[in-house]
Amino acid sequence: MVVKVYVDYRSQPCRALVLFLKNTKIPFEIETIDVIKGDNRKPEFGKVTPLQTVPAIQDGDFSMGETVAIIRYLATKYADLVPDHWYPKDLKKRARVDEYMAFHHTGTRGGCCDIFVSEVLIPLFSGGKQHASEERLKRDEENLTKQLDKLENAFLQDNDWLAGDDISVADVLAVSEIMENTVNGRDVTEGRPKLRAFVDRVKNRLNPAFDEVHEAVDAWRDSY
Amino acid sequence: MVVKVYVDYRSQPCRALVLFLKNTKIPFEIETIDVIKGDNRKPEFGKVTPLQTVPAIQDGDFSMGETVAIIRYLATKYADLVPDHWYPKDLKKRARVDEYMAFHHTGTRGGCCDIFVSEVLIPLFSGGKQHASEERLKRDEENLTKQLDKLENAFLQDNDWLAGDDISVADVLAVSEIMENTVNGRDVTEGRPKLRAFVDRVKNRLNPAFDEVHEAVDAWRDSY
Repeated sequence: MVVKVYVDYRSQPCRALVLFLKNTKIPFEIETIDVIKGDNRKPEFGKVTPLQTVPAIQDGDFSMGETVAIIRYLATKYADLVPDHWYPKDLKKRARVDEYMAFHHTGTRGGCCDIFVSEVLIPLFSGGKQHASEERLKRDEENLTKQLDKLENAFLQDNDWLAGDDISVADVLAVSEIMENTVNGRDVTEGRPKLRAFVDRVKNRLNPAFDEVHEAVDAWRDSY
Repeated sequence: MVVKVYVDYRSQPCRALVLFLKNTKIPFEIETIDVIKGDNRKPEFGKVTPLQTVPAIQDGDFSMGETVAIIRYLATKYADLVPDHWYPKDLKKRARVDEYMAFHHTGTRGGCCDIFVSEVLIPLFSGGKQHASEERLKRDEENLTKQLDKLENAFLQDNDWLAGDDISVADVLAVSEIMENTVNGRDVTEGRPKLRAFVDRVKNRLNPAFDEVHEAVDAWRDSY
C-alpha cells in the first residue's frame, strides 16, 4: 500500500516530511496542494484532515495532519523501512529528538515563521494592500533572535546535529524553516557561523534530494 | 528509582504533567521552581535542561525538558505503570493523541498563552510599568478565537474527549491552558458551551487531583 502525501512545496513542514520520506523506503506518492490558491480549504481536503493544513497523509482508510505526528506514525508503522538515525528507537535517543520536535513549533518555526508571515505572507495574501506594522516587525525580529539563540544554545551547541550523533528528523524540520526566509532574501544564519555550518551540513548530507525539494523555494525567491 | 519533576504550579504544562503523573503509578517527587523569582535561570537548573524552562525531569543520570517529550519518555519507559488510555499503545489511537499534541503548541497553548502574556505577564514582569499595546491585544484576541475554533472543530467536535474515546494527555494539556486565563478573570469558554462542558468533564473526571493541582492558579486569581 502506498501512502498518499499531500504537500505544497512552498511549505516548510511539507519539505521536511518529503525529505524524511525520500531517505526511507516507505512507499509514498505526492499529491500537490496549492495553499495560496486555497486547495486546502476545499471540503474534500477537510475529509483528509479537519485541520485543513498541509502536510497531511492518507494511509489506507486512515488519514491525519500535523507533521511531527505524521513522522511518528510512519516511523512506527514502517519501522523496518526507516534508517534508525532518523527517529531512533532507543529510549533516550528518541527522547532527545522528541524534545527538539516539541521545541520546534514555537522555537525554530515560531521564530522563523512569524517574521516570514509579516514580511511575505501578509502582503501576498492582501494583494500588496496590507503590511505588518513596525511594532509587529520589531517583535518578530526580537522573537527570531530569541528562538535562534535557544536553537544554538540548547540544541546545536558544538555538535554536528541537533539531537544525537547523526542526522534526524529534528535537523530537516529546523533547516526547512531556515530556508523559507530566503524567499525574501533574509538569511537568518547571518552572524551565526555555527548555525550556517549546520545548514550547509544538512544540505550536503541530503543532496541532491535537498535541492530538489527546495526548487519551489528557489523559484519563489527568483520571482520575488 | 524516583523521577524528580521540576515544576512551577503556575505553569500550564507543569500542571498537565503532574495531573498525568498522579494518574499513573510512576514513582515521582516534585521539586518546586519559582519562575517568577527566576529559579529556572540559575546555572544549576541549566544542567537539568539547557532550555531553562519548566517542567523538566531528572531520571537517574538522564534529564530533559519539554512537556510532551517528557510525557512520551515516561509513558514509554514506565509503560506498565500508565493506564493505556492516557497515551494509547495502539498505532492509530496514539497517532490521534500525537496529532493533538503537535497542534497544541501553537493551537490551544498559542491562543490561550499569547493573550495571557499580554494581559498578565507583561505588567507583572515590568512591575506594572509596561502594558501590551491595543494592536497586540487585538491580534491576541483574534488568534485566541482562531485557535479555539480549530480546537473545537478539528479535535473536540461532538466527542467527549479531544483524541479518542477516553481521557488522554491531550485533554489535560488543553484544559491546563484554558484554566490559566482564569487568573485575570478571562473565561475563554464563554459562548462555547461544548468547550465549557469539556472542561467540566475533565475536572470531574480528575478531581480531587484537578483542584489540588490548580490551587496555585486559584491563589493567583484571588490575589490578582
